[in-house]
Amino acid sequence: MSVDPFRRAVAHLARFPGVGEKTATRYAYWLLRQPPEVAEGIAEALTTLRRSVHECARCRDLSSDTICRRCADARRDAATLCVVERPQDINALDGSGTYKGAFHVLHGALSPLDGVGPAELRIRELLARMGGTDGLPPVAEVILATDPDVEGDATALYLAKLLKPLGVRVTRLAHGVSVGTEIEFADRVSLARALEGRREM
Amino acid sequence: MSVDPFRRAVAHLARFPGVGEKTATRYAYWLLRQPPEVAEGIAEALTTLRRSVHECARCRDLSSDTICRRCADARRDAATLCVVERPQDINALDGSGTYKGAFHVLHGALSPLDGVGPAELRIRELLARMGGTDGLPPVAEVILATDPDVEGDATALYLAKLLKPLGVRVTRLAHGVSVGTEIEFADRVSLARALEGRREM
Repeated sequence: MSVDPFRRAVAHLARFPGVGEKTATRYAYWLLRQPPEVAEGIAEALTTLRRSVHECARCRDLSSDTICRRCADARRDAATLCVVERPQDINALDGSGTYKGAFHVLHGALSPLDGVGPAELRIRELLARMGGTDGLPPVAEVILATDPDVEGDATALYLAKLLKPLGVRVTRLAHGVSVGTEIEFADRVSLARALEGRREM
Repeated sequence: MSVDPFRRAVAHLARFPGVGEKTATRYAYWLLRQPPEVAEGIAEALTTLRRSVHECARCRDLSSDTICRRCADARRDAATLCVVERPQDINALDGSGTYKGAFHVLHGALSPLDGVGPAELRIRELLARMGGTDGLPPVAEVILATDPDVEGDATALYLAKLLKPLGVRVTRLAHGVSVGTEIEFADRVSLARALEGRREM
């Protein structure tokens, strides 16, 4: 078969990360074998996802509310902020079970060669949280949980220099997360140990 | 993040074959980093695909026309039918460059344990083509290009018994397609050799 709707669907599916033409073709053929509701369901879910999910006004995590579920949770310690590169890192750290503070998502790491400078990250928003806003206490400690790679290290150093003059305790995740492993894919035990053994910067 | 639209999108994306929750989550996060047009485009392409693509009335390949492009091509030899399990097998065989006849898609192979009997395949439609319809000549040869596995072999045997009494020449793809390889993924050279060396059944 080589009709336009098919080629168009394959081209669109091949945009997903890690999906080549062969995999996209397999997805398309699979879709054609399903009842029409399956395609409609996927299409509707993707459109809704993109339309309804935004950044939380406080922690910049993705949320369909103005303030996300975690930020709205009064049992969490708002005086401790854990800074991560990506929204998916939050789930990994939360799953370790040892952290009950707040989060802040940078949406990336410093990478001058890729054109990612401080202005491209949610650093201004991070600084704005330091003094305490919306009746929250000032931040006492910032845990830098960026990836243990060149960009993550550079971002942690940059933030440490920025935050320490403000009188905030700045720590970084300890050994436990092996070098080369991205936070998102680290196992719970390693993450728990990394949190416990966090060190001053 | 753990909002409903996100979970729903992940659940829907995880329906694609070979996609687990981790991959689906990666797709969803990627989608959130793209401009809204990307999600809308994918959604629209999938809906259009499922709505506009049907089986060709003649060869049962997938097409957005009543009669597909290949069946409508008068330069193809309508007296020779190559029978395949799946629509994607057609592209593989066509790509071998040695076949200029017509095709017939069974949409599966006999597999009693999975509840796939002759009625589940497009066998009735295959038999209806033997005498020649719509001004086409009667079929002189049927090449069975089912996969070289248990189901494909059983299907070929079943069809050979059905077709030979009708006075049709029935052949099967020759060595060249190695045992265990699915037609869809065979290389062009092997497929060309398999077509040239096809043998009587």
